[in-house]
Amino acid sequence: MGKNRLEAFSDGVIAIIITMMVLEMKIPHGDSLTTLAPIATVFLSYVLSFVYIGIYWNNHHHMLYACNRVTGGILWANLHFLFWLSLFPFVTGWMGENHFAPVPFALYGGVLLAAAVAYLILQQTIIASQGSESPLKAAIGAIGREFFGCPVFVCNHLDVPVAVGGSGAVRGGSDPVVSA
Amino acid sequence: MGKNRLEAFSDGVIAIIITMMVLEMKIPHGDSLTTLAPIATVFLSYVLSFVYIGIYWNNHHHMLYACNRVTGGILWANLHFLFWLSLFPFVTGWMGENHFAPVPFALYGGVLLAAAVAYLILQQTIIASQGSESPLKAAIGAIGREFFGCPVFVCNHLDVPVAVGGSGAVRGGSDPVVSA
Amino acid sequence: MGKNRLEAFSDGVIAIIITMMVLEMKIPHGDSLTTLAPIATVFLSYVLSFVYIGIYWNNHHHMLYACNRVTGGILWANLHFLFWLSLFPFVTGWMGENHFAPVPFALYGGVLLAAAVAYLILQQTIIASQGSESPLKAAIGAIGREFFGCPVFVCNHLDVPVAVGGSGAVRGGSDPVVSA
Amino acid sequence: MGKNRLEAFSDGVIAIIITMMVLEMKIPHGDSLTTLAPIATVFLSYVLSFVYIGIYWNNHHHMLYACNRVTGGILWANLHFLFWLSLFPFVTGWMGENHFAPVPFALYGGVLLAAAVAYLILQQTIIASQGSESPLKAAIGAIGREFFGCPVFVCNHLDVPVAVGGSGAVRGGSDPVVSA
Repeated sequence: MGKNRLEAFSDGVIAIIITMMVLEMKIPHGDSLTTLAPIATVFLSYVLSFVYIGIYWNNHHHMLYACNRVTGGILWANLHFLFWLSLFPFVTGWMGENHFAPVPFALYGGVLLAAAVAYLILQQTIIASQGSESPLKAAIGAIGREFFGCPVFVCNHLDVPVAVGGSGAVRGGSDPVVSA
Repeated sequence: MGKNRLEAFSDGVIAIIITMMVLEMKIPHGDSLTTLAPIATVFLSYVLSFVYIGIYWNNHHHMLYACNRVTGGILWANLHFLFWLSLFPFVTGWMGENHFAPVPFALYGGVLLAAAVAYLILQQTIIASQGSESPLKAAIGAIGREFFGCPVFVCNHLDVPVAVGGSGAVRGGSDPVVSA
Repeated sequence: MGKNRLEAFSDGVIAIIITMMVLEMKIPHGDSLTTLAPIATVFLSYVLSFVYIGIYWNNHHHMLYACNRVTGGILWANLHFLFWLSLFPFVTGWMGENHFAPVPFALYGGVLLAAAVAYLILQQTIIASQGSESPLKAAIGAIGREFFGCPVFVCNHLDVPVAVGGSGAVRGGSDPVVSA
Repeated sequence: MGKNRLEAFSDGVIAIIITMMVLEMKIPHGDSLTTLAPIATVFLSYVLSFVYIGIYWNNHHHMLYACNRVTGGILWANLHFLFWLSLFPFVTGWMGENHFAPVPFALYGGVLLAAAVAYLILQQTIIASQGSESPLKAAIGAIGREFFGCPVFVCNHLDVPVAVGGSGAVRGGSDPVVSA
């Protein structure tokens, strides 16, 4: 089974998620700049989530590039990953509307964490299915590097990630390091 | 006529359906965890529908993999199947907002049943169009197995399906059994 | 320039349109069947538009199959066609909410007519660009048949089209006649 | 790394943006033509944005056609470009609802300007990555022409662009000039 449809479906879902988030910015009533003020934080959280999903799309792109066989397990690990991404519009909108209040902020962080874990599971599933000669495993190298270099550093999840380890490790020969 | 566009269109529609459902989770007003309580059942029904549509996407993926010729009848059987899937966001949202009340719950089950029937019709249309050497027919085997192994066991439609017969039967040589 | 991206973009837009229409069916408040009554006409108009857009997608599929060269004119004729399709969710929702009242009904018919005209323009643009040996022109044959066999018989636009001339004429050798 | 997924993802995002804008045309309550009057300006701004995004899609199509290598920089320049496009539904809706009032109008112009700048950045990133034998650079020619022939003449941003320099310059051999 080719990986074309897996890529196409993932691209479709991620494309929809990344553009649907902007729908949470409700059009204000009134035509002055001051009416835009209440949605400033919604806009900020939109930008933040756009960058995060962009990072994930890039990494997903690189990871599947190094994947030669698609198994049922990969399909489900991929769906599991997309499920957490699909919650981004909701938590982004809630965080933005509440001006980064603690509870919505924590929920946003939780979804980020879950997406990062799901990404690692997908990575491990791909490595396990490719056999010992997996180019992905070779690219990622030590198990420690794989863990600490996970695509989103959840602890400081508001800093724009500087080193996107997973992507850099998996990239094909001709691609420079993808940094945010 | 190749099956690429059929796959691409189906992927697009299913990707939109699976992500649109999350829009039914309206962002609550307020920033405490208690404001999330009313949408807990909406979230549960979202997860349930996400799994169902994921199963259907997997099975659809495998079934078309075993399909060599695309006819007009397949195009329409596929559109018919997508029509029932497109009702998922509506019935999911209604069921979730009413905390799994009997009538919305029954409607949800009805749409599930219709989608399962539409899937069977699509399967039969593909088999009929492929001629006697159809790999799909060989994979599915006896007519009884085909019926009882239909992708969604509607009677107990709240149990996460354990055996996804259609998918397992149709899978290509290198794919392990896809189980939910 | 290949036609792959043209097909992919058209598939994407049509997939979004066909699934977005269901969003106009607002989830009712209440959990009894009677609360569904007000949206019965919305559902009916959704089914109607789903069938229409399905017919157009099929025909578009067949027409581009017979197109070997993509020019700038075809790109714009295609966008023009997609523009009218993109108005379907709006007119469908308006017609459904007003129980097929005369003015929304007429507007719906107008958009249908405009889409049919845009489809004909796209067809002519493709034929003109393919040169004298155009397989599409050969398939369509006489100019009269092309006009009267246009994919949607606008005059009786509520009857499900019985003969979908354009599609049947353009179909590749191995495809049976696509009938609604 | 091939450019197929980059194209597919961009097509997905642009397809969603171009169709999502129509959702800002809220269905009016009432079934007479007069109820449509308040959304006339929303419709006008929708048409305007549809044309703009259509132009960008065409140009993007041509530009990537002349791109042989995809690097991480191109992925990010492309995401940056898509970010500004993703703001179109919001600014289009705001401008339309306020009947082209000065502030929303200026914001719309600002997003247009940002999208044009992002397009130029993407163009330069592609040229820089292709090396000295870049067909895109050869097509675009002098740096001045590249700047003044940028796809959207922002100063008079309400005129439908007559000469779409970037597109014309980048087009493949068999494509006529794409003019709006």
